[in-house]
Amino acid sequence: MHYRITVSYDGTKYFGWQKTMFGPSVQSELELAASFVLDEKIQCEAASRTDRGVHARGQVVQLCSTGSRPPERLLAGMNARLPDDIRVIEVVEVEETFHPTLGAVAKTYTYQFCTDIVQNPFFRKFSWHYPHAIDPGAIRAAAEKLVGTHDFSAFTTEPKPDNTRTVFRIELIEASPWKLVLTADRFLYKMARTLAGTLAYVGSGKLPVESIDQLLKTPDRTLAGMTAPPHGLCLERVYYKLPLEV
Amino acid sequence: MHYRITVSYDGTKYFGWQKTMFGPSVQSELELAASFVLDEKIQCEAASRTDRGVHARGQVVQLCSTGSRPPERLLAGMNARLPDDIRVIEVVEVEETFHPTLGAVAKTYTYQFCTDIVQNPFFRKFSWHYPHAIDPGAIRAAAEKLVGTHDFSAFTTEPKPDNTRTVFRIELIEASPWKLVLTADRFLYKMARTLAGTLAYVGSGKLPVESIDQLLKTPDRTLAGMTAPPHGLCLERVYYKLPLEV
Repeated sequence: MHYRITVSYDGTKYFGWQKTMFGPSVQSELELAASFVLDEKIQCEAASRTDRGVHARGQVVQLCSTGSRPPERLLAGMNARLPDDIRVIEVVEVEETFHPTLGAVAKTYTYQFCTDIVQNPFFRKFSWHYPHAIDPGAIRAAAEKLVGTHDFSAFTTEPKPDNTRTVFRIELIEASPWKLVLTADRFLYKMARTLAGTLAYVGSGKLPVESIDQLLKTPDRTLAGMTAPPHGLCLERVYYKLPLEV
Repeated sequence: MHYRITVSYDGTKYFGWQKTMFGPSVQSELELAASFVLDEKIQCEAASRTDRGVHARGQVVQLCSTGSRPPERLLAGMNARLPDDIRVIEVVEVEETFHPTLGAVAKTYTYQFCTDIVQNPFFRKFSWHYPHAIDPGAIRAAAEKLVGTHDFSAFTTEPKPDNTRTVFRIELIEASPWKLVLTADRFLYKMARTLAGTLAYVGSGKLPVESIDQLLKTPDRTLAGMTAPPHGLCLERVYYKLPLEV
């Protein structure tokens, strides 16, 4: 039986999604829990290989089993075994052809940053402390330029042969902490965090809004803003159908 | 110089406000930081001796120094020494007569509870997992009965000679997690958590709304709801002036 599993996790203590010998990973925790419940060695694949310290509210994971455990039993069993910073929030049976990465048509990440002079201790693990005055109009103007199909070479630390990506939407939510909502067809390596860092720089006046035009024409990573730290980032949702529901 | 300090903390890892030999406390962290910055042995007193695991966004602390360090220097210096789960958010100079406990005319606590079947991992340290269907109307009806001046003996584990207290306001915010906002002149020991536990019981139908009338007439703690767990509770604000600003 093939399952699609939606997972939520506080990534603070994990070395990222992917299994590594250096420390705990979300993948290894999920595989351990699923193997225990299904009583066979389970491997799983995720829509996004989130980096160390990155969170997820809607990571999508695929796993298959030779048995036919009902999805609700798998959900309850896995949650009983998992540490409390990882939770399976949905399990559904899917076709054998389902692939979490190849099938995805879009992903939404949020990026939070806190601009208070003193960092709020409740946000410290979930938002970047960026104590600068922010002009939301400048961020929105820059975001408008980023939306669309562009070459995002300047927004990744590991360019691929083709760095053309489509950003569907960038929204700035004015709250404390500030929240950027970023939706694109696919994200290059560290693209979400570089978009966040660049937009924060634009918002605080470190980069002019017009710099975005230049950035979309050049592959020069050094001209963009910093890669914002991982703990502000959260994978919110993975889409498998167009048009995207909001 | 006498200072009034407003402190915000994630109480997860602390054994409560008060110094104890059993583990870390917020008081000892603050005294260590203040003693270092002011270069003398500092003791401090708080408006509320929050229990182990309870959080605060607006704890009020008093300390006095033989020197006259400017308040903004004390704030910056203490934050540079404190662990990142405790933050000083305001320091002001006050009269010698200021007393954080005796001077307080009211306190506001919030209590969060999460009713999703699967606990959201992002709320696990800040909300009670109470997976039951909630009738907000029942909670509001019970809250209305609790507001006012009553004998709250049934809502404390350590009754005093006089258990009359005035609850100014109880508000239920319908969000995920649910949030109760509780304002009273003074709270008896574990009163906020017992009010929260009782209101959650009323909301889920474990106690009828009418049980509140009975509870306010009897000193029988066993008739009230459970003492809700500490990690859902947060001291939001301490008031020193009437009328209360909202």
